[in-house]
Amino acid sequence: MEIDYSGIKVIGFDADDTLWVNETYFRKAEEEFAKLLSEFETPNKIDQELFKMEIGNLPLYGYGVKAFTLSMVECALELSNYTISNEKIQKILNIGKNMLNEPVELLDGVEEVLEKLSKKYRLILATKGDLLDQERKLEKSGLTSYFHHIEVLSDKKEANYSKLLNHLDINPSEFLMIGNSLKSDILPLVNIEAKAIHVPFHTTWAHEMVTEKETNGKQYKTIQTLRELLKLVP
Amino acid sequence: MEIDYSGIKVIGFDADDTLWVNETYFRKAEEEFAKLLSEFETPNKIDQELFKMEIGNLPLYGYGVKAFTLSMVECALELSNYTISNEKIQKILNIGKNMLNEPVELLDGVEEVLEKLSKKYRLILATKGDLLDQERKLEKSGLTSYFHHIEVLSDKKEANYSKLLNHLDINPSEFLMIGNSLKSDILPLVNIEAKAIHVPFHTTWAHEMVTEKETNGKQYKTIQTLRELLKLVP
Repeated sequence: MEIDYSGIKVIGFDADDTLWVNETYFRKAEEEFAKLLSEFETPNKIDQELFKMEIGNLPLYGYGVKAFTLSMVECALELSNYTISNEKIQKILNIGKNMLNEPVELLDGVEEVLEKLSKKYRLILATKGDLLDQERKLEKSGLTSYFHHIEVLSDKKEANYSKLLNHLDINPSEFLMIGNSLKSDILPLVNIEAKAIHVPFHTTWAHEMVTEKETNGKQYKTIQTLRELLKLVP
Repeated sequence: MEIDYSGIKVIGFDADDTLWVNETYFRKAEEEFAKLLSEFETPNKIDQELFKMEIGNLPLYGYGVKAFTLSMVECALELSNYTISNEKIQKILNIGKNMLNEPVELLDGVEEVLEKLSKKYRLILATKGDLLDQERKLEKSGLTSYFHHIEVLSDKKEANYSKLLNHLDINPSEFLMIGNSLKSDILPLVNIEAKAIHVPFHTTWAHEMVTEKETNGKQYKTIQTLRELLKLVP
């Protein structure tokens, strides 16, 4: 069935891994972390335990680099059975700091797509993570002026989107969300009667994975690059 | 000179130490931290070094409990000359986690004042810190319904407020801000031609201190309890 985008007035964009590279830096950090702990465990086990620690801390810490760094430190203490050196803990803190200083690398076609769409639609940015970090990345990206509204959300569930659309006086049927995460950018929108287009990124955090059952029968389109958007919502 | 509040249409409230207790929990955490490090330094020196670490990390980490926790860990490594035990680092992480789990204790008169003012004015909440933590505190506070808009800011400087008022379509001359921090809640507002009323809290973080020179000649009022607001903006 073809999806009709003719009623769309506002387009929302996810930021991390939709407009710019992000997950790649987390993968790199996880690799460095596993190397630091290689005297204690296998890379696989370290990855698993770090993920468990992140998920366990999620309700308290939320998303973002600071939460990730705190979870790395706690995981290192546990995995080393409280024997890891202070120097290695400092190195873990530095992994986090380096992440916050990473450059912003725009994905292919982003600037062109935003420039064209911003002439016909109201664009908003809806992202989650550390407030300051997201603001900093947006500034570094040079994309701020394309967006009518920027929202950093503590989570991206149906209720968060409903509240946002309500607050901005946007009817869900007039709203289209674009993002790389089925769990955070696509399914919650489809479930509140808004539209969504999925642009996969080559790597996805395990926490953002969804099962086939969850996507089954859901009405959304998948495109391979952001540029294809210009054909769907001209 | 009397300040005229008759043109006020929107009232902004700071949250931490204006609506509910916050700095008290930081002071308690700093004391626990100093006790943990007592084998290495005097409490005074520990306080100083932690403050330096926080300010040094501020541009990268921003405000809030997660930033504070990361700075405590880094400070502990340095102050102990990289000899602190893993158990103590775990205890530092726990200090941060406990802070995130503290109850929300409303200050005297808050509910009554918000209830009355919300009938005549549009109320907004403008706070800084961790996004998730601030949302959680607001929810625990039971005050959400009094506010027309809630904004967690990465910082509270003139530019942040100007952007917020502009975004909400509020004329500075119609805006009154209420808060405990001269630096964050009062002076930036006075400087952009909005109004501000200072309600001091009994303890102030050193970073929020201002000199007499900075407040000299600035037009704002100081009240002792939030209840006095009801006389000034009836």
